[in-house]
Amino acid sequence: MNCKRRKALAAMGTMLGAGVGGAVLGRFAPAAAAPLPSPPLPWPYSKLDPSAVAERAYWSYPDGHCMFSSFAGLVGELAEKVGHPYKSFPMEVMKYGAGGVAGWGTLCGALNGAAAAIYLASDDPDPVIDELFWWYSNEKLPDFVPPESPVPITQSVSRSPLCHVSVAEWCSASGLKAYSKQRNERCARLAASAARRAAQILNAQQGGTLTLAHPAPDEVKRCRSCHERAGSVENTRGKMHCSQCHPGVEPSHPGDGGGRSSKEG
Amino acid sequence: MNCKRRKALAAMGTMLGAGVGGAVLGRFAPAAAAPLPSPPLPWPYSKLDPSAVAERAYWSYPDGHCMFSSFAGLVGELAEKVGHPYKSFPMEVMKYGAGGVAGWGTLCGALNGAAAAIYLASDDPDPVIDELFWWYSNEKLPDFVPPESPVPITQSVSRSPLCHVSVAEWCSASGLKAYSKQRNERCARLAASAARRAAQILNAQQGGTLTLAHPAPDEVKRCRSCHERAGSVENTRGKMHCSQCHPGVEPSHPGDGGGRSSKEG
Repeated sequence: MNCKRRKALAAMGTMLGAGVGGAVLGRFAPAAAAPLPSPPLPWPYSKLDPSAVAERAYWSYPDGHCMFSSFAGLVGELAEKVGHPYKSFPMEVMKYGAGGVAGWGTLCGALNGAAAAIYLASDDPDPVIDELFWWYSNEKLPDFVPPESPVPITQSVSRSPLCHVSVAEWCSASGLKAYSKQRNERCARLAASAARRAAQILNAQQGGTLTLAHPAPDEVKRCRSCHERAGSVENTRGKMHCSQCHPGVEPSHPGDGGGRSSKEG
Repeated sequence: MNCKRRKALAAMGTMLGAGVGGAVLGRFAPAAAAPLPSPPLPWPYSKLDPSAVAERAYWSYPDGHCMFSSFAGLVGELAEKVGHPYKSFPMEVMKYGAGGVAGWGTLCGALNGAAAAIYLASDDPDPVIDELFWWYSNEKLPDFVPPESPVPITQSVSRSPLCHVSVAEWCSASGLKAYSKQRNERCARLAASAARRAAQILNAQQGGTLTLAHPAPDEVKRCRSCHERAGSVENTRGKMHCSQCHPGVEPSHPGDGGGRSSKEG
């Protein structure tokens, strides 16, 4: 960014930045940050065969793990049905999300990849992502069984979109280890399950029949009513289950000084 | 996937799927799931100016929030320096990660976007991501101040790569609300901070001088020694701070039956 442009930005920032910095208050950006050439989103969506999406996701897993798998299931099918611009997407990048991003156990890669694919193809992605994430948090998964090798795998309910929690719940339910072959197979089927569910929701949205079959649980609604946007406290953001990381919030809350927070950790 | 191909896969699955399904055991995949045309990763990396990356990220924030911002800072600069294939990446898709993906508060978008960009440009991305995520978890942030509008913003230490926690810690430190203009400005600066740090680490890696300035804390190492890969319990995955969601693990642990888990939530 050259000095002249920075001075111009400074002038705009001063003009618009009453009290806080300029970036959040204006829609302008320097020419250097202008969008680079690529077709605008959303790209054309064509109704998908959820079973084909699931199978493609499942068979993509060995090549790149969870995030790559769910993304490849959805975008690979769209590339075959729609062609350009899906065909030119460098899908390999989605390998970064493996194990909740490089093994960090944050967001489950099956969800991270599906959310990215949803954003490519939907003109209103947030309700699709909400339904997918709540479904994932509340259902017994994986629910995809590969026709080619239908060996049973233990199902579990994660109550969370996070990899760390999802794996721990599965290990607890199955009695198996986190780096076992069975856990790897479970995650391949989980990625296929999530990709299939995303395709079903996208199809419903395109057909005008999308309903939120998995709305936020009452617990989360209650917490959010004070702690989220426009609540009396409004001191965080999020839609995840609350009591997993904040157990022991008393029935008398609010009024007891607040629930357990990370401060106590 | 046609019937013929499925039968062929079934045969391979039977052959390879001893005890568990076939996907995790073989490197094969059906032709339909073969990689689509795009340049293989990593793409060429050219040493970046961290300050230019930060400024580009900061000024990209109003167009797509945290994940888009950090990704655009890094990949926008690479597009300008290297050109193809960075120029053709549909950066707009990275908007999906806003607020920890559609407001869910999972992985901080500044990290999600930076991790994706790192994966495009590094031939050994995991150490770069590790250093970035630990830096983010342990430093007082944001540490980027836009030269155009250097209004002070409260800094905080998240101890977590998760949006929900990071925002809550900042609200606690600042006394300000989660949807305030100041929080929005804080996240714009945080995305710029993360993009700048990622550029510094990528530069160090390319120059052969990468060192892990922010290794895993001792607490995490202790927990992982039993609960992670090859540990006696091996019942989860992850690198995040443990005590934020598992407070109250007794000093006598192990031996007390285990720390608090989501089961108690």
